[in-house]
Order: sequence, then C-alpha cells, then structure tokens
Amino acid sequence: MTGRDQMSEETKEVAFQGEPGAYSEAAAIAYFGEEIQTLPCYSFEDIFDSVVDGKVTHGLIPIENSLAGSIHRNYDLMLRYNLNIVGEYHLRVSHCLMAFPGVKLAAIRTVHSHPQALAQCDQHIADLGLEIVVESDTAGSARMLKEKKMRNAAAIASKRAADVYNLQILLENMEDNTANYTRFLAITQPASDQKVDEQSAYKSSIVFSLKNQPGSLYKAMGVFASRDIDLTKIESRPIAGKPWEYMFYIDFAGHAASEDCNAALDELKDLSLFFRLLGAYPRHQLEY
Amino acid sequence: MTGRDQMSEETKEVAFQGEPGAYSEAAAIAYFGEEIQTLPCYSFEDIFDSVVDGKVTHGLIPIENSLAGSIHRNYDLMLRYNLNIVGEYHLRVSHCLMAFPGVKLAAIRTVHSHPQALAQCDQHIADLGLEIVVESDTAGSARMLKEKKMRNAAAIASKRAADVYNLQILLENMEDNTANYTRFLAITQPASDQKVDEQSAYKSSIVFSLKNQPGSLYKAMGVFASRDIDLTKIESRPIAGKPWEYMFYIDFAGHAASEDCNAALDELKDLSLFFRLLGAYPRHQLEY
Repeated sequence: MTGRDQMSEETKEVAFQGEPGAYSEAAAIAYFGEEIQTLPCYSFEDIFDSVVDGKVTHGLIPIENSLAGSIHRNYDLMLRYNLNIVGEYHLRVSHCLMAFPGVKLAAIRTVHSHPQALAQCDQHIADLGLEIVVESDTAGSARMLKEKKMRNAAAIASKRAADVYNLQILLENMEDNTANYTRFLAITQPASDQKVDEQSAYKSSIVFSLKNQPGSLYKAMGVFASRDIDLTKIESRPIAGKPWEYMFYIDFAGHAASEDCNAALDELKDLSLFFRLLGAYPRHQLEY
Repeated sequence: MTGRDQMSEETKEVAFQGEPGAYSEAAAIAYFGEEIQTLPCYSFEDIFDSVVDGKVTHGLIPIENSLAGSIHRNYDLMLRYNLNIVGEYHLRVSHCLMAFPGVKLAAIRTVHSHPQALAQCDQHIADLGLEIVVESDTAGSARMLKEKKMRNAAAIASKRAADVYNLQILLENMEDNTANYTRFLAITQPASDQKVDEQSAYKSSIVFSLKNQPGSLYKAMGVFASRDIDLTKIESRPIAGKPWEYMFYIDFAGHAASEDCNAALDELKDLSLFFRLLGAYPRHQLEY
C-alpha cells in the first residue's frame, strides 16, 4: 500500500521547486499520480507559502539525496512553517542525455545542465568527449535547447524533461553511480482526520531541542532504543542566537500515535525544551 | 593555554580558502599569530592538496557556522584526505561596511558582498536604504571597490579586508544577529610526536560507520555516556553507493589518548565497520 492509495479522489494540486520537467515534478507525478496538477515554484520557500495560502493542496520537497546528503534548507523550513508531512517518496535519479529531434549523438559538441547533474555524469561525459556548459537548472537546460533549436548541444535532465519539451533521448542512465536516490516529503496543511492503518508500515518525523546537559542526546535516543523503535535518520541544525546548540530532526519507524511510539514521545517531551511532531506517514520501501 | 602556545617557533605557512582579507585569513592570523605566511586557495580541496604536497605547514578550514550550520564539503574532505586536526578556533563573524578612502556614508548607493553576508546584514542595509549587489566573495568585493575606485558603493567584508585593501570602515557590526561564529579547524600532516598536556582541556574528533542494525547509533553514543564523556557535535554524511547509510562525525570533550577516552574508542571500534581518529587538540573556549 502506498501513500497514494490512502488519498481521496479529488484532484491534487502539487507545488514543486524548479521548471516543468524537473526531477521534483517527476517525483510528484510518480507519487501522486498522472492526474495531478503541478505548480512550478522558484524557491523551496514558495512551495511552503503556496501550501499555506491554499494555492495548492500539497507540496513535494526534496529532503535528502543519497550522494549529496540532506537539503538543510528544507529542514529549516519544516520548522518555520506549521505544515504536516503526509508521505515520502524515493526517486531513483536517472540522468538522460537529450537533444533537438533528429540530431545525432555524433553531432553533439557541448552538454548543458546543472553543476551537480554534470558532476554525477562526469565519466560518461569525458568518454563522449563533450564540453560541459553549466546552467542553473536541468529542466531549464532542456527548455533552452528546444527554444534555441540548438543542433550541436545536448542537455542532461530527467526523462520527463524530454517529454515536456519534445526532445529526443540519446542516452539513458548517464550517471556514473547508479545508487542515486532522492527522498521527497509530501507536505500539506495540518488536518485532524488522519487515518491510521495498523497493517501499514509507517514512519514518523519529529523535531526537538534538548536541555543543554551532558548525555542529553543519548538519553533522547534511549526512549526509542528501549522500545526497539528503529531510527532511520538523525539530522541536526543550528539554533540561531545559541551558538553550538542544535535542533534535532529524527525519523523513526512506526506511527507516532501507536502505543509504543506515543509512550516514547511522551518521555522525549520531558527531556526537551522544544518538541514538535512533523508527521506520521506510510513508509516508502524501495528495493535497491 | 591555546593551540598557538603549543606550536614550535618556526614560521607557519597556512592555506585558507578565499582572497586576501577573507574571514578565513582573519581566523588564521587570530589563531596562528601575525607572523605567519598565508596562502589564498581557490577551493577547500586546494587547501588539503597544499598541505599534502608540503606547500604549506597547515591548512585552516571552516567546519561550522552558528547560523548557517555545518560546511559539509569539509567533513567529506576530512574523510578523503589523511590529515590530522591539531586545533580549533571560533571566529566571531563581525561584518564591516567599507568604502574608498574619503567617501562619506551619505554618498553610498549600492552595497556589494557575498549573498550570505548580505543576508546577515539585511536589516541594517534596509535601514540605510542601500541597493544590494551580489558578488562571489566578501574580500573580493572589497578589492573591486579599491581597484575600480568606486565612490558610490560600499562592500561588506571583514575588518582585515579593509586593512588589506586600504579601505575606510564606515560602520562596524553590520550583522543583525551578533551570535554569529564560525568554527575553524587547523589541519596538518600526521605526526606521531603530539604532546599531551594533562592540564589542558582537549577535544577529539572521530569519524566512523556502524553495522546497519537497530539501535547501533544509540549503542555507539553509549560508550561515551557511560563514561560521562560529553559529545559536543554529531554530524552525519551519506556513504556513496549505500543509500541511507551514513558516516558519523563526533567531537567529544577529552583527549583520545586519555585512559577513559581510549577505552570508549576501543569499545566503539567493535561496533564500527570503519573508524578513524581525525585528531585530538586543545579546546578553544569562547565566552559568549
């Protein structure tokens, strides 16, 4: 069972960061389904604002990439905005080399994309002998090829970008390391009617700060360990105005409202200066 | 006692990232002393290479800012290169508004700096009614003012940048939040003759990966908690090729070679797939 099965049938409107054809848009469609309406946003902050203002029903934010690490800005925004996490999705980031229709690989001289995508395809690009040109966006590079009808250039972007801009895919799986996944979180306005299906595997996300005393984080983790609750991620972010003190973000296996997890969180609240439940949602298990 | 007191009297050559007058150079001089020679580097990687190649005796790298968080690139480089941490320094980041000599504040229309420095002075800049111009570097902005003899522009940079480029400081403490500190690490080639002064307060830094089983991080932290060893920082970074598995970086109070810490680390090694001591060094205590 996926997050999608649990959602009602009304049309979802989903804000994502980037241009049409971005990996985030591909993730939104893979998670919510083909029938959604998507809203491209300039910044991550715009996603949060769009959800708060009711312009969209959901936002989809990248929170971590398996090669590059956490997207810390989104951790900070989760804290600043009072939104709920209602789902997660792991997107396999597979880079495609694409060009204007009819252009052959042999004619390509330059390859355009975002620096991170170019870096992830470094070996393949070197093997092909292409000159790299840095752009601000993967999907934007694809759009540019199309608009300027460039015939000696290719872009590295998502398969979806090729669909959106009617480009031709020359090569798939351009990335040097195939263990390239981005974890996305679906966020929405807080609702009190969240259903808990006891048969599903859940994950929950919390954020808290601790009293500043030796061993406090160890004690905090103990409330989970003593109940065999598995922590899947721990992240820390600075607290502005309190140098070298931190907000801790923890994801754990289980639903926050289940008996065991609820008892653990009650104990954690006693150790915390600040505590918030960010959401409990069906776990997306991906076979690697 | 500071790290500097422990160093020998020969001239230090210290690589830092940025242009002359960068905050990193100011930190290098504050930590190592006025008599050092500094080497500006284009990238963090260049610092590590310069130390490995023997071009310099030391490198000084920023590892964390109290507002923006960890500099993850340097965590990754600490793992990739086999260098030792021999000291730490907390620099109070105080932004100055500076201009070409003789220019009055009333004549200033634009302010040039790195986006992060501009963001940290947001309120002051708005109060002065200045138009912001984004540059790639704080010290580089100062250099540009000087070279182009700009008379309606100011730069936001370190006090040292004003000294280096003979600019005039119009305003100090431009930052909106004064709890702005960057922690730097001094790195050098591994040596076996490190002196341990039992009277000093030490910190040690380690990096390790754990067997992937529930509660493993809790157990790892338990080796410190059971001995009342205080953890001052925990950071995680992805392991390439193993999605959602992590390298953990921990700083703790105490010298790795002391009896208690040594026993804790022996226990930790049994729990680890990978373990490395990055260094043990005098703690820099800063009164806030």
